[in-house]
Amino acid sequence: MTTSLLTDVYQLKMIYAHWKTGTHGAPVTFDLFFRTAPHGGSLAITGGVYEALHWLSHLYFTADDIDYLRTADAELRTFEPAFWDEVIHPFGFTGDVDAILDGTPVFPKEPILRITAPIYQAQYVESALLAMINHMTLISSKAARIVQAAAGAPVIEMGLRRAQGPEAAILGAKAAYQAGVGSTSNFEAGRRYGIPVVGTNAHAWFQFPDSDYEAMLAWARAYNDLVLLLDTFDTLRSGLPNAIRVARETGKSIRAIRLDSGDLAYLAKQVRATLDAEGFSATKIIASSDLDEFVIHDLRQQGAPIDIWGVGTQLITGGKQAALNGVYKLCAVGDEPRIKLSNNPAKVTIPGRKQVVRFYVDGMMAGDVLMLDDEPVPDGSEPYELIDPVYQWKRKVLRAYQAVPLLTPVVRGGKIVHPELSDARGAMGAARERCQEQSQRLWAEYRRLLNPEHYPVDLSPKLLALQEHEVAAHRRHTQ
Amino acid sequence: MTTSLLTDVYQLKMIYAHWKTGTHGAPVTFDLFFRTAPHGGSLAITGGVYEALHWLSHLYFTADDIDYLRTADAELRTFEPAFWDEVIHPFGFTGDVDAILDGTPVFPKEPILRITAPIYQAQYVESALLAMINHMTLISSKAARIVQAAAGAPVIEMGLRRAQGPEAAILGAKAAYQAGVGSTSNFEAGRRYGIPVVGTNAHAWFQFPDSDYEAMLAWARAYNDLVLLLDTFDTLRSGLPNAIRVARETGKSIRAIRLDSGDLAYLAKQVRATLDAEGFSATKIIASSDLDEFVIHDLRQQGAPIDIWGVGTQLITGGKQAALNGVYKLCAVGDEPRIKLSNNPAKVTIPGRKQVVRFYVDGMMAGDVLMLDDEPVPDGSEPYELIDPVYQWKRKVLRAYQAVPLLTPVVRGGKIVHPELSDARGAMGAARERCQEQSQRLWAEYRRLLNPEHYPVDLSPKLLALQEHEVAAHRRHTQ
Repeated sequence: MTTSLLTDVYQLKMIYAHWKTGTHGAPVTFDLFFRTAPHGGSLAITGGVYEALHWLSHLYFTADDIDYLRTADAELRTFEPAFWDEVIHPFGFTGDVDAILDGTPVFPKEPILRITAPIYQAQYVESALLAMINHMTLISSKAARIVQAAAGAPVIEMGLRRAQGPEAAILGAKAAYQAGVGSTSNFEAGRRYGIPVVGTNAHAWFQFPDSDYEAMLAWARAYNDLVLLLDTFDTLRSGLPNAIRVARETGKSIRAIRLDSGDLAYLAKQVRATLDAEGFSATKIIASSDLDEFVIHDLRQQGAPIDIWGVGTQLITGGKQAALNGVYKLCAVGDEPRIKLSNNPAKVTIPGRKQVVRFYVDGMMAGDVLMLDDEPVPDGSEPYELIDPVYQWKRKVLRAYQAVPLLTPVVRGGKIVHPELSDARGAMGAARERCQEQSQRLWAEYRRLLNPEHYPVDLSPKLLALQEHEVAAHRRHTQ
Repeated sequence: MTTSLLTDVYQLKMIYAHWKTGTHGAPVTFDLFFRTAPHGGSLAITGGVYEALHWLSHLYFTADDIDYLRTADAELRTFEPAFWDEVIHPFGFTGDVDAILDGTPVFPKEPILRITAPIYQAQYVESALLAMINHMTLISSKAARIVQAAAGAPVIEMGLRRAQGPEAAILGAKAAYQAGVGSTSNFEAGRRYGIPVVGTNAHAWFQFPDSDYEAMLAWARAYNDLVLLLDTFDTLRSGLPNAIRVARETGKSIRAIRLDSGDLAYLAKQVRATLDAEGFSATKIIASSDLDEFVIHDLRQQGAPIDIWGVGTQLITGGKQAALNGVYKLCAVGDEPRIKLSNNPAKVTIPGRKQVVRFYVDGMMAGDVLMLDDEPVPDGSEPYELIDPVYQWKRKVLRAYQAVPLLTPVVRGGKIVHPELSDARGAMGAARERCQEQSQRLWAEYRRLLNPEHYPVDLSPKLLALQEHEVAAHRRHTQ
């Protein structure tokens, strides 16, 4: 998706008004962050940062783009010619971006991107950056939960047919792989990113001859190590006995069977027992059928002997939560902090150019602190006190810790400068490793699927004082 | 999205097994349909048919595609060279498709597409057709509900930033427009399809100078007929009085104000009263803020004087329902019917090549009947009895009716033959008109947002007998 028109109309209207006022070149900083963790969890796994930065760093307008924009609505038709010549024709992103790289566990309020650029550029890119990061972070976060529920058993992404269109399927497969899903059923995702692909067979294969026996016999003509769907006419009375019969008659092995409907716990146990009794103990059981992290968790609790999980709709769309509520907020004009107020306290922003510092104790994540960018990252030589920004009596002193900044320079002067981001496959592999490594550093209470413990995301004393000052200044202003 | 690798791996594995068995050229018919109407309604509005058919009719493999496929996994590497030469190298879709065109209200079990082709082709295209039609039908259906709730007030699609990626945003904007949404905030959707675009201004515009007055004054330097966001620092104490002050000082008119947070009913009433009292009775009120059909309905019930609705996340993603459960099922091999059985009665398919016939009485939709394709469509000369396929005592005799087949020839021999589908914009316009026209023919009880009445989708006596025969044959088979 390389179109440069991937933005909301109001961005251009604001840019024109800035230009008319002479403020379009003002240097500003925006934060991209979300307010609530998705899927009922405490955290998200970053995704889409690679895509967002590549879009940003390749931004320019073709003559066709400009022809369209000049006449797109009645107001745009009134824009002065000099605006198109001076601002839009030479347009490109020339600013700086710091990012929390893909595959990182992040928490509400933490900037995933920090963009510093002339306001006309920073404003123009908002919509696309949000679209890419909201989507892929949503899917990575869902995938991480499903992978966690599977507890080491492989998960296959197979949601192409239920995705929100082809591109969402392909980008979703990538986001899922970054978060630990092992393979995809989607050839284009496999081709584009090198994700391992897998495939079995569909009910239609069995309907074609209208008999399990004939269908399985035909399959054995093409393959030596069979993967067979069993819930076609009747799992236990037709699918399973015919699979065994065909394997014996043809001398072929059964690598796996798949269950795609019915009571998966009951069927998996019955199928496992029969397979073992009949000498097919190496045969794996693949389960699919509108699975999500909760169903997988329950089936495992019930002792269902399922070896491989195939997850479609709920993974590729986010299921009940179809959107991450990521936003993009102005936090500074030059060196002056800016705040957005709201009657809803959750919507008040944190002003100033910030860094996100992650504290580890004994290798485990102990809490994150948002600090002003010019504060030194604590080096461990002195204790550090975590202070809850709302309930300030909630404090915890860390003594032996390691503090690591998460926002890292990725774009400087409009060019991608982080070596990890030079190619899509390399970045994907690094994100996958990062997700696995970081997930091991998260205490189980923060990763609980339902009602997890709240992970501390605090403000440094300097940042907290700045926020309080900004709020107070505005309250005086409007009273 | 023109890639031909937009399919699930198992499709190719089945095609190879068919080829090894010598059955890959067998003519078959598949139905694409959904089992449950989305969003709690009784119906869906078709979308994505244009996209699906254009993808299908342009299908071929490049040398790069084939190079990838030959080595995509261990099993694919064992495929005989003749398979690639004979089947994949010359691959293209050469079959026939009948479709219910975009913008049509449809109901569970009704085939939206009926594909007749050699099985290797019909199987290959399943995943992409489902991805496109599931996505855009989901969004068209949601959009129709939102448009209905707005009761004639314009609806703006503004979901780009929360969509499941950029392409989902653009295709979703198109699906929404087809279902009656009037405009989009997304420039690329505007450029690609000619959808009207609209844009206002963001909170960041007001944060930049850190004052409503200065921000609005700057806006008035660029525009004569102002559109102003009011909920920036304080809607009633700052946004509204400053808007009026700036309009008076600059002599400019206020075309519209926007409310994007807070209690929209209360704020809209207060703002309306003040605007009217101050001589701004022509100023429109635009509301946005996580709206969906239910919130819009409630706000209207409360008498909120909102003139224009801006809808983002809930529209562009489907909100709570993020996927349509469309499926693609084999219904015939040549002239022989095929059925898919399941312990779940809702998953038992309707066998045979079928037509969907819509009955109108006094211009209003009275019920749909699935018939075998070779049954004559009733011409109104004799009464027609609708029979519920499950509760067969539920019957209704139609006397003066008009019966119209909905499945229409769209692809013949792999080529698009329906004139409406020759270009994207023309097809979009026709779909929008069709949706509007058909929606007026739906009784209000079927369109109710919550707990709508079930619309009759019956089977002709011949088709019902065929289904019962197929079920009975299989029950004997497996008992």
